[in-house]
Amino acid sequence: MNNYIELIDKKLDEFMPICYPQKIFKSMKYTVTLPGKRLRPIMCLETCRMFGGNIEDAIPTACAIEMLHAQTLIHDDMPCMDNDMYRRGKLTNHMVFGEANALLAGDALLTFAPQIILKNSKNLGAEKLVKIMEEYFERAGAYGVIAGQVVDIESEKFEVTEDDEQLPEILDYIHTHKTADLFKLALRTGAIIADATDEQLEEITEFGQAMGVAFQIADDILDVTSTFEEMGKTLGKDKEAGKLTYVNLYGLEKSKKDLNELLDKCFDILKRNNLQSEIFEQILNKIRIS
Amino acid sequence: MNNYIELIDKKLDEFMPICYPQKIFKSMKYTVTLPGKRLRPIMCLETCRMFGGNIEDAIPTACAIEMLHAQTLIHDDMPCMDNDMYRRGKLTNHMVFGEANALLAGDALLTFAPQIILKNSKNLGAEKLVKIMEEYFERAGAYGVIAGQVVDIESEKFEVTEDDEQLPEILDYIHTHKTADLFKLALRTGAIIADATDEQLEEITEFGQAMGVAFQIADDILDVTSTFEEMGKTLGKDKEAGKLTYVNLYGLEKSKKDLNELLDKCFDILKRNNLQSEIFEQILNKIRIS
Repeated sequence: MNNYIELIDKKLDEFMPICYPQKIFKSMKYTVTLPGKRLRPIMCLETCRMFGGNIEDAIPTACAIEMLHAQTLIHDDMPCMDNDMYRRGKLTNHMVFGEANALLAGDALLTFAPQIILKNSKNLGAEKLVKIMEEYFERAGAYGVIAGQVVDIESEKFEVTEDDEQLPEILDYIHTHKTADLFKLALRTGAIIADATDEQLEEITEFGQAMGVAFQIADDILDVTSTFEEMGKTLGKDKEAGKLTYVNLYGLEKSKKDLNELLDKCFDILKRNNLQSEIFEQILNKIRIS
Repeated sequence: MNNYIELIDKKLDEFMPICYPQKIFKSMKYTVTLPGKRLRPIMCLETCRMFGGNIEDAIPTACAIEMLHAQTLIHDDMPCMDNDMYRRGKLTNHMVFGEANALLAGDALLTFAPQIILKNSKNLGAEKLVKIMEEYFERAGAYGVIAGQVVDIESEKFEVTEDDEQLPEILDYIHTHKTADLFKLALRTGAIIADATDEQLEEITEFGQAMGVAFQIADDILDVTSTFEEMGKTLGKDKEAGKLTYVNLYGLEKSKKDLNELLDKCFDILKRNNLQSEIFEQILNKIRIS
């Protein structure tokens, strides 16, 4: 795991030289290189390895996905969105570089990330590059992460009551798109680079869906049970905002139970596909909350 | 000209169905389909035709460039940027849909636009699609339009004095990237789709650079000489903000002279390359200010 993180951090640094105008490149790099778990790029590299690919081939794509993730954080934290001052224990992008710059840094990352793939993965050939681009736009955009964010914002207006039949479906939609779509992007591009079959792609997509939702449930749980020091960001805001979260809708006990069932499902998918990965086992076990 | 506009408007409408979550798709479409001159998509189609290509092949790319243009308008108008309430005579995106949604609509357009190209231009083949993607990211991102916007914002802090030797270079940088880069994107992708030679690409790039800067100088001039009714947006803000503009730096007379010289250069480029285009002649003559 640490080898992967080291490799990704080194490559992120290399892929992001500070060009003119420096302010925009500095602000893009600031959030991308905040110390983090690098979960999404690790997933991309490890999936590529698991399906017999060369992880070198997946490095630009893995790093691009981390940049895309940073983009969502920068815009999410802005005053007109979640209005967060801290992220990973550091000041958020707009607190350091100003709002206008944070807005543009996020925009720039959305085009810089796929550019990194195109510039540094020419050896994959045009056909595969087009496939990776298609995945990237489908998961990053209005049908993916952004759709999840829009419904997430809308859901703040809801009163969370247990008898509203629509809420479980809406919550599932938010988790699927806001969180699981980036996981699926990482896994599917890793698999595509390794020439996985369509069947393997389907299996890894199901894995990403379960892991993504599990990850978001864990995040919802930690929001009520953890502290600022442990998480590096302001907590308890979900409840305060009356937000539609797994914990607010189902309570803490059922949330933990469902979380662990989803993780079991992930282990099952690995097993039934004869996929061995200590890395994914570690990640899944870290998400588990007992 | 009107045939082109009709075609583009029809295709923009087709390419943008209102999917779930409706709010984001409605807000994306709102700004994209505001009545406009459709200059950039027309340039893309006309360049493709001029170099012997089939304009049908360029329609998705032309429409994507209009979407990208709309994205820059949405984010530019936001309170943390130019804080504009009107655009093309209508309320700006955030005034209608709220700031959070406008932020996300802009983000969504940045990925939706290249997605439209990939989904609807499969007949161009993967090699050409990769080339178009490369052009798109290079001109739209941190090396292109966004670089221009960042320096533009920075320039608001400058005191515009005639003896500052750096200012002409900075202003040229802003105009080159903030405005001419999108023109060059439209022209170059049109040419690439028509299989133009490298030499032809260079010539059309020079044309786009001259036309883009001319267009921006004209915009700077109209900001001080025109009215809200004529332009559909709040004017005189550049002077108020002490902004670095062509008129503030060189005065009205020299601005008009340089504008018309750039337009003459554009006509020369068409002539020396034996390119005949009533459309480009009309566009250039419309930019001219006597």
